[in-house]
Amino acid sequence: QIDEEVSKLLQLKAQLGGDDGKHQFVLKTAKGTRDYNPKQMAIREKVFNTIIGCFKRHGAETIDTPVFELKETLTGKYGEDSKLIYDLKDQGGELLSLRYDLTVPFARYLAMNKITNIKRYHIAKVYRRDNPAMTRGRYREFYQCDFDIAGQYDAMIPDAECLKIVHEILSELDLGDFRIKVNDRRILDGMFAVCGVPDDKFRTICSTVDKLDKMPWEEVKKEMVNEKGLSEEAADQIGEYVSMQGGMDLAERLLQDQKMSQSKQACAGLSDIKLLFSYLQLFQVTDKVVFDLSLARGLDYYTGIIYEAVLTQAGVAPVTTEAQNGAAAEESVSVGSVAGGGRYDGLVGMFDPKGRKVPCVGVSIGIERVFSIMEQKAEAEVMYKKNPKLLSQLQHCEESGIPLVAILGEQELKDGVVKLRVVATREEVDISRADLIDEVRRRTSAA
Amino acid sequence: QIDEEVSKLLQLKAQLGGDDGKHQFVLKTAKGTRDYNPKQMAIREKVFNTIIGCFKRHGAETIDTPVFELKETLTGKYGEDSKLIYDLKDQGGELLSLRYDLTVPFARYLAMNKITNIKRYHIAKVYRRDNPAMTRGRYREFYQCDFDIAGQYDAMIPDAECLKIVHEILSELDLGDFRIKVNDRRILDGMFAVCGVPDDKFRTICSTVDKLDKMPWEEVKKEMVNEKGLSEEAADQIGEYVSMQGGMDLAERLLQDQKMSQSKQACAGLSDIKLLFSYLQLFQVTDKVVFDLSLARGLDYYTGIIYEAVLTQAGVAPVTTEAQNGAAAEESVSVGSVAGGGRYDGLVGMFDPKGRKVPCVGVSIGIERVFSIMEQKAEAEVMYKKNPKLLSQLQHCEESGIPLVAILGEQELKDGVVKLRVVATREEVDISRADLIDEVRRRTSAA
Repeated sequence: QIDEEVSKLLQLKAQLGGDDGKHQFVLKTAKGTRDYNPKQMAIREKVFNTIIGCFKRHGAETIDTPVFELKETLTGKYGEDSKLIYDLKDQGGELLSLRYDLTVPFARYLAMNKITNIKRYHIAKVYRRDNPAMTRGRYREFYQCDFDIAGQYDAMIPDAECLKIVHEILSELDLGDFRIKVNDRRILDGMFAVCGVPDDKFRTICSTVDKLDKMPWEEVKKEMVNEKGLSEEAADQIGEYVSMQGGMDLAERLLQDQKMSQSKQACAGLSDIKLLFSYLQLFQVTDKVVFDLSLARGLDYYTGIIYEAVLTQAGVAPVTTEAQNGAAAEESVSVGSVAGGGRYDGLVGMFDPKGRKVPCVGVSIGIERVFSIMEQKAEAEVMYKKNPKLLSQLQHCEESGIPLVAILGEQELKDGVVKLRVVATREEVDISRADLIDEVRRRTSAA
Repeated sequence: QIDEEVSKLLQLKAQLGGDDGKHQFVLKTAKGTRDYNPKQMAIREKVFNTIIGCFKRHGAETIDTPVFELKETLTGKYGEDSKLIYDLKDQGGELLSLRYDLTVPFARYLAMNKITNIKRYHIAKVYRRDNPAMTRGRYREFYQCDFDIAGQYDAMIPDAECLKIVHEILSELDLGDFRIKVNDRRILDGMFAVCGVPDDKFRTICSTVDKLDKMPWEEVKKEMVNEKGLSEEAADQIGEYVSMQGGMDLAERLLQDQKMSQSKQACAGLSDIKLLFSYLQLFQVTDKVVFDLSLARGLDYYTGIIYEAVLTQAGVAPVTTEAQNGAAAEESVSVGSVAGGGRYDGLVGMFDPKGRKVPCVGVSIGIERVFSIMEQKAEAEVMYKKNPKLLSQLQHCEESGIPLVAILGEQELKDGVVKLRVVATREEVDISRADLIDEVRRRTSAA
């Protein structure tokens, strides 16, 4: 916030500072935004082509909507995230806001055109006044690549197709291993009910659960009890459930759970999770999908299945600050969500004058992190020197924070090994070629 | 303005109107904006492919910039049009505005990255709080397709390439006949000087001249004299010059003109127009290019050559309201500008801390009008009836404002004629096939 105020004062100063006869400019893009240079545009085009190819293969058409909507259209759709919406200045005329996602404009489009049946994709920029972390691909202006299915179909089939699409795209983009976490809003609500959360606190407690991917349970619990006024026992009961992960078996077990089975809602959700996994088996994608009760997703509009995909390989995106803070090493460190979505059967009805509902399910690929990773990969590919000295290469690694160097000279070729150099400590060690991949993985996944 | 206030009140009413327990929504897109449905997206893709193909053929790379810039970045670049800029609400942090064109962000990009040499294209939406006329393809959110050449080159060669590009694109898109008007800011300034316009009134008088494509000279003169305080004689002298049109010959004549030749600036501009035409002859595009002294273009940043392309065929876009107002019939009725641009050698320097200049010239294709025309064409192409009755077809024409129907029955086939029906008056006349095209052109270009 201080940064923001300083930048505002600097701008004002620049506007005033005409005494020396010269207008001073702050030469930058707006906070949290960036330009794309031609090289980055080439990467962007390649990624989009992969994604659009997949969407089209699954039979989707595309639409576009304006970058801003009536403010009213966005009101009451995003829960506690609403504070991150960009409003336009009131210059006379309608009150407008920049779109926050592509889902709400899609629902508005369906209601406006009385469409009850469509499979559409939409690739466009959305806007959130969030705290940017640009080195990790978190911007205030960023692309979303959305695929949604609207219409009345047999249970869990469109939902399974959305997960299949995430699986296809993340595999094709070749970003390393990933997991798709799945949960259901009805399971969360049922769980809150049987744990003794008052009805009017479901949404706000859900927002707190959503923070479990960024905060340890102890802090999440503290927020529940101290800030949101939940009882200690209720919080502890929630804590037990949200630590559970599994597959179809977990859904079956919870259907027998004495407490959970008391909630009709939870049972409906759990049965659908079972059904979903049976379709995922047919699609052969269960290897990457986990039923995870800690997955909450902040947005208000979800009514059923929700999901989120995360890359599980550390080191593919720079995580230096966390590592320096001494965070404990974990087997697989999440580098953040790259896709998310769920079912929202009530949203279109919120726009229809007669409240007619159109069931919808969709997924959004968060492409900015993908860009970051691909750009880093592209950076590393070629060095434009015809005869680069080893020393200058090592210096380049030190300057640009590359953690490991693989050196393959005549001696190493003869011995069938690779010399691995830790850039920070300058320590060098010979590794057999067979062990190289595991060794690099081990060293880059450690804190 | 009343419309805007009413719509604002309706929105506020909708927000308040919760007494009946139901939230009322205004189900629309923001004023001056529209959604694209899948059919329109297909047309858009086709048009973009044509344009991008041409830009790439001419060796351009592409970049992208954020949809909003620091407000400061846009200040002082657009002259009297600045009032049309969309500002974002001050929600803490930087003061931001939506981009008004792609040229200023491009100049900011060049200065920020210290690029002195690039050929780039950029296709993206820009935002203007103008009075929308959506049936004629005038929106508040609209695409621009920009091609610009930055760098120090021999005079008029990049400028000629920009005109060649406009010629190629408009020919390929097959929108009917067009004209490219050319002028030079230095000729305008020189003309203002020799006509006795005070220095500090050049810009504002230039803005008034720019209205000549929408207003008759008498009204433009009135604005100069009554609103801008110019003397009657000065205005009349300007009136004489701005009625002049021609080619290289006109430039030569004006170089000999007793008054005009007194201005060094005007002479520099006129010599460059001559040089430009010599390159245009080599490119074989002089048939469509007119040196037109009434062309002014409103934006502040132009420093040399300016140009604007207009479609000259009436009837390709709906012009019903004008026609109903009884506007006088002209040989070729302009349906509005579809491309424009010019040289802006000072803009990048405005962003550079040391004022270092990077000469630039570019062109912007105003694609929304092209979309409107193509969509209308696409609409007309196929009727989804396997056996449509003549009467229902004629009714469809009356309802959708199609002006002429060509009827080709057995009798007409035998006689080698086509029956032409004027939908409005229901008058019918036989035309020989050879004369058909001329006749349709004559009837659609008349008021």
